[in-house]
Amino acid sequence: MIKTDILIIGAGPTGLFTVFEAGLLKLKCHLIDALPQPGGQCAEIYPKKPIYDIPGFPEVLAGDLVDNLMEQIKSFEPGFTLGERADTIEKQEDGTFIVTTNRGTKHHAPVVAIAGGLGSFEPRKPPIANIADFEDKGVAYIIRDPEVYRDQRVVIAGGGDSALDWTIFLADVASEVTLVHRRNEFRGALDSVEKVAELKKLGKVNLITEAEVVGLHGEEHITGVTVKHKTEGEFVKDTDHFIPLFGLSPKLGPIANWGLEIEKNAIKVDNTLDYQTNIPGIYAIGDVNTYPGKLKLILCGFHEATLMCQSAYQRIHPDKKYVMKYTTVSGIDGFDGSRKEAKKAVVKSIT
Amino acid sequence: MIKTDILIIGAGPTGLFTVFEAGLLKLKCHLIDALPQPGGQCAEIYPKKPIYDIPGFPEVLAGDLVDNLMEQIKSFEPGFTLGERADTIEKQEDGTFIVTTNRGTKHHAPVVAIAGGLGSFEPRKPPIANIADFEDKGVAYIIRDPEVYRDQRVVIAGGGDSALDWTIFLADVASEVTLVHRRNEFRGALDSVEKVAELKKLGKVNLITEAEVVGLHGEEHITGVTVKHKTEGEFVKDTDHFIPLFGLSPKLGPIANWGLEIEKNAIKVDNTLDYQTNIPGIYAIGDVNTYPGKLKLILCGFHEATLMCQSAYQRIHPDKKYVMKYTTVSGIDGFDGSRKEAKKAVVKSIT
Ligand SMILES: Cc1cc2nc3c(=O)[nH]c(=O)nc-3n(C[C@H](O)[C@H](O)[C@H](O)COP(=O)(O)OP(=O)(O)OC[C@H]3O[C@@H](n4cnc5c(N)ncnc54)[C@H](O)[C@@H]3O)c2cc1C
Ligand SMILES: Cc1cc2nc3c(=O)[nH]c(=O)nc-3n(C[C@H](O)[C@H](O)[C@H](O)COP(=O)(O)OP(=O)(O)OC[C@H]3O[C@@H](n4cnc5c(N)ncnc54)[C@H](O)[C@@H]3O)c2cc1C
Repeated sequence: MIKTDILIIGAGPTGLFTVFEAGLLKLKCHLIDALPQPGGQCAEIYPKKPIYDIPGFPEVLAGDLVDNLMEQIKSFEPGFTLGERADTIEKQEDGTFIVTTNRGTKHHAPVVAIAGGLGSFEPRKPPIANIADFEDKGVAYIIRDPEVYRDQRVVIAGGGDSALDWTIFLADVASEVTLVHRRNEFRGALDSVEKVAELKKLGKVNLITEAEVVGLHGEEHITGVTVKHKTEGEFVKDTDHFIPLFGLSPKLGPIANWGLEIEKNAIKVDNTLDYQTNIPGIYAIGDVNTYPGKLKLILCGFHEATLMCQSAYQRIHPDKKYVMKYTTVSGIDGFDGSRKEAKKAVVKSIT
Repeated sequence: MIKTDILIIGAGPTGLFTVFEAGLLKLKCHLIDALPQPGGQCAEIYPKKPIYDIPGFPEVLAGDLVDNLMEQIKSFEPGFTLGERADTIEKQEDGTFIVTTNRGTKHHAPVVAIAGGLGSFEPRKPPIANIADFEDKGVAYIIRDPEVYRDQRVVIAGGGDSALDWTIFLADVASEVTLVHRRNEFRGALDSVEKVAELKKLGKVNLITEAEVVGLHGEEHITGVTVKHKTEGEFVKDTDHFIPLFGLSPKLGPIANWGLEIEKNAIKVDNTLDYQTNIPGIYAIGDVNTYPGKLKLILCGFHEATLMCQSAYQRIHPDKKYVMKYTTVSGIDGFDGSRKEAKKAVVKSIT
């Protein structure tokens, strides 16, 4: 059982910044995310694109914003359960919560902050009849650890950035990489497309275009896929792994059944005070919540996280009164023992 | 008469970021500030100190944050009325407002956003009987334009950073700089104190410590000050200028008489929707407002400004519907004709 003060569901920018504001209040956080990496939409959908409306950044790449947030919260030592989806929540008699993931990991906390964005990112799966039978047996929709593919044969399907980028990356890891795509045209960053073209020329990558994977073979583990080519018909390609990368789409998913008030696919919260849901102790912040005038913007999630942490503090310490201090004046005391502070003014005589 | 869409009172971080959010909605802004420079508390009180709780900045100097915000809003071409205090507001028959400063500058806008922070910064004046007679006649509490002092004799009073920094700066501009301070000890950045000590040794600055300026002389313009020394008694020091730098303290000031609901020295707003005050068309954002759970933090002002601009847009364009677009997706079209946008993905075939 993982224990923490604030259990955060969703490690997007809102969830990450919550760790910082909680840390200022000396509250510890643990984050759960369905994705294998932190950063939410910024990391998964547009890491290399610039955002222009983060205050103080005339321009910042979404991926760099995530890196900066990770650096900002580092000294508050957040815990992470990555690659797992929060599936169930049970309220305990003492008012605390136990949240369990699809892999059975249990988390226990007095406060739950849902920062689930548009929902947990779920892969778009190709319509191959028996694909579910091969999940974790050679079929994967998200690459968690590229080392799994070292010296193995890999078939990737897809025509976007993920398919291109992993083809490039695995060309140096796997013993054989085959990229299958329905069209001749790929859609992605110019240099990724060019790099794949070059790898193809060098014979380091097999490219099968105007084709689809339509069948999977094997017993305990996948051993091959059936490829259907537009003009050449069907043939079997032997492989140890099949990785369809057709994008991830967010689904509110199991959270929709937690008894929370839902409106327009988002969780209704009390924006007059602390972004709490209809269940005391459960808050919803960032893209996942809704209230009159709500804007699904990163900077709004930062504000909501900050006000929410004050309320969480009162819930956890009902008899303490927190007096807000400016970080500039009080500095930052990390849970790792580190301290950051402004240089003090000197009082010094001139003689 | 200066005309604009949103008239912003206060050019602190909140007021500055409002220009950006308004710009995304194609609304023009003009800012009034009592200080000669933008940046509010960040620029006036602690420009060289680090802030740790701006999201995405593990650490940023307050002055650099202001510079970044100025850069971020540049292409939306904000207008500035600096060094003037907004004193009166008159509602027009058509629902628009005219705001007049203490120097008589008039501004006309359909929406007023008060981002006045803790109030307009007013200098702490030394208790010298006739000091008001010499204001603008050689006595100044804020240095607006250092060129005024070129080849002139200057007496500065004070023992903090402002007094130290301007003594250093004017040593190269004025024909003679005298710094008068009540104690031997100065309170400021170590290198400023050391620099003044060095200038004194080089004979580039006169230092009179354990002394106070207690009288002013002159007819049309100041010609000298009476200095009272702890042990040596009173003497007259000839000078063309006297600049007491005892700090600026914010005062809500005239805004308190605008008919707005005030609570705890702040303006009550509707935080359930758009941070509007009790007078439709007048909003209050940032440190200047109050609502249940309010935190006087920079990041909260950013959020309030963003929601407020949506409401201002509806007031200005009652029959248009604004559909929010992500900056990453739509880019930024400056009012100066500039355009910033993310690199588009290519669609390219690999042959
Ligand atoms: C192309 C694009 C451009 C954008 N441009 C801008 C812009 O310019 N400016 C701006 O402010 N915003 C922009 N946005 C929106 C911005 O990315 C979101 O507002 C922001 O990511 C929301 O942050 P969040 O932390 O609330 O949620 P998210 O970033 O969506 O993160 C939520 C996380 O929660 C996880 N999760 C959800 N449910 C569960 C569960 N049950 N178990 C485990 N994990 C779960 C998800 O996997 C996800 O990682 C853009 C979005 C896109 C797609
Ligand atoms: C030492 C110190 C450390 C701080 N540290 C932090 C920190 O670590 N993190 C954080 O988030 N915040 C911190 N703060 C607070 C932060 O600076 C404020 O929250 C922020 O400046 C508020 O911004 P604002 O734009 O709302 O108002 P302000 O910065 O106060 O700006 C308001 C401006 O309005 C002008 N004004 C007011 N009335 C009038 C008028 N009638 N006419 C013309 N001009 C007018 C004033 O002159 C002023 O320039 C700190 C503050 C101080 C003093």
